[in-house]
Amino acid sequence: MSLDGLIEAISATGNPSVVGLDPTPALLPSQFLGNEAYQVGDGQTESADSAARLAKAYLRFNEAVMQGIQGIVPAVKPQIAMYEALGVAGIQAYIATCSLAQSMGFYVLGDIKRGDIGSTAAAYAGHLSGIEGVSESSPWHEDGITVNPYLGSDGILPFVDAANKCDKDVFVLVRTSNPSSDEIQELALTDGRKVYECVADLVNSWGDDSIGAHGYSRVGAVVGATHPKAGQALRRRMPHTFFLIPGFGAQGGSADDVAAMFDVHGSGAVVNSSRGIIGSWRKSPEYDTTLTAEDAFTLVSRSSREAALSMKKALRHALSAQGKDRT
Amino acid sequence: MSLDGLIEAISATGNPSVVGLDPTPALLPSQFLGNEAYQVGDGQTESADSAARLAKAYLRFNEAVMQGIQGIVPAVKPQIAMYEALGVAGIQAYIATCSLAQSMGFYVLGDIKRGDIGSTAAAYAGHLSGIEGVSESSPWHEDGITVNPYLGSDGILPFVDAANKCDKDVFVLVRTSNPSSDEIQELALTDGRKVYECVADLVNSWGDDSIGAHGYSRVGAVVGATHPKAGQALRRRMPHTFFLIPGFGAQGGSADDVAAMFDVHGSGAVVNSSRGIIGSWRKSPEYDTTLTAEDAFTLVSRSSREAALSMKKALRHALSAQGKDRT
Repeated sequence: MSLDGLIEAISATGNPSVVGLDPTPALLPSQFLGNEAYQVGDGQTESADSAARLAKAYLRFNEAVMQGIQGIVPAVKPQIAMYEALGVAGIQAYIATCSLAQSMGFYVLGDIKRGDIGSTAAAYAGHLSGIEGVSESSPWHEDGITVNPYLGSDGILPFVDAANKCDKDVFVLVRTSNPSSDEIQELALTDGRKVYECVADLVNSWGDDSIGAHGYSRVGAVVGATHPKAGQALRRRMPHTFFLIPGFGAQGGSADDVAAMFDVHGSGAVVNSSRGIIGSWRKSPEYDTTLTAEDAFTLVSRSSREAALSMKKALRHALSAQGKDRT
Repeated sequence: MSLDGLIEAISATGNPSVVGLDPTPALLPSQFLGNEAYQVGDGQTESADSAARLAKAYLRFNEAVMQGIQGIVPAVKPQIAMYEALGVAGIQAYIATCSLAQSMGFYVLGDIKRGDIGSTAAAYAGHLSGIEGVSESSPWHEDGITVNPYLGSDGILPFVDAANKCDKDVFVLVRTSNPSSDEIQELALTDGRKVYECVADLVNSWGDDSIGAHGYSRVGAVVGATHPKAGQALRRRMPHTFFLIPGFGAQGGSADDVAAMFDVHGSGAVVNSSRGIIGSWRKSPEYDTTLTAEDAFTLVSRSSREAALSMKKALRHALSAQGKDRT
């Protein structure tokens, strides 16, 4: 699926949201870790065993979440850092998660924040395109990825080329949601712009040649929900740039904040929530450590579904209140 | 090995250089690809087979390079992008390369350029520390890693904490070697600094608490050989910051350029060369496609050794000419 497909899936579900699949040990019910099915015991060292067991638990947990949100949420965003921490077993779980998500009909946005000099960026772009002569398609099963702009155009254009070739997408960090993002992104330039505004202008230029059927380029921007004023100004500054908006919920961004970053038709952005959805089972009065593995799986699915529906309702309400509910 | 150990290994070898292990299909003699030993044929799809075969060839090639430079060069820097392009098999080859390098006595600098918001950076920091309760040590076998500063302090400090805890190191991108790095890094700020100078000041502050026995902090900086004037100014601006200098050789930086980025004692930096070393076999008159796999392995080792010795000589000569050869 490409950005046009994502925009259509958002229309079909009426839900401009994406669920971050960012598992941690603390976010998993103990039933996912204790099940004998996750014991691998194939002669690896104990810590490799632990990592492999946890990686398989992550995959199973993601499956529970995705079963709950299927048909309601159009996209998922696995954060590769959570999986990389587990080494090879974690990478296997990341790729299996992406592959399963694609087979379940989700748009898969790999949150990998890569970026390097030209020749190296071209190798990273294998995430989207695979390697010529080695693999016809990518081994990673991502539809889009996030990238970091600090190295400038020659660190980004290889990703854009690969995206154009494979009908996939790239989302460039512009204004991130974290508290200390100000330290570099908000620096004032002598030409009157801020650093992130300069990055925004570069993103516009990188995307000029790939504007799709719905008016948005395949070079998107990451704009945090925690900076609502900057986000609104960027919406005007980047009329053809689709936004990935992290920082909703747990990080502090409200539905009204993010709704202001959509275009007048209620399109142009997708809002991410991670812990607010995948950790919602922790607030359920039905959770108990004595639940069976099967019941814990069902509870994770149901809680995720309910949390996703609640987020959808909040977004739709805020969009409607701003007169952006016309589509 | 930590930065103090690296500085001592540089002294012992008299060679402030690091070899970039950045294999690509074009950099491998055909003998590494054709050997039946690399046929896996375990029922995977054809492209997974190709990727697995190429990944194993990368590992074997790295082994040839490292056998050649062992005892001459103190450090290696595998660029993870080259391996990620091959999916899981590539990651396995990356980790096996790091592990082999450590067992051969090299300082292993993982060129991974990660960076994300605080909670996610903490997960990425598993590259250095492993995960508490899951793995006692990291599954990645890196002694140091490169990170990207665009997200500010809370995206970097989790790496610094992990480095402090595990006696490892972090190198932050400050002024990268690629042509379009100017677009963001050279932007002029209203306070009189450039963006990269602001990043340099942040790097200084992040490293203040971890200055080691040889006067350098475990928070290093990446400063490209292609910006000699900026590099010299940064050397003065960052007296306790150890530099990783890429961009020597193939990218255009000369020995005189990089020598100027060392301190007055000829310390404070390590210079990377990738293609100039690992691709040196391509210039050998002895190479022939009819060589056996064993002879091709030997030729890669010997060519890498000769190229590394030639780079060492050039660096020592330039340092000496600048009166920095006193150690």
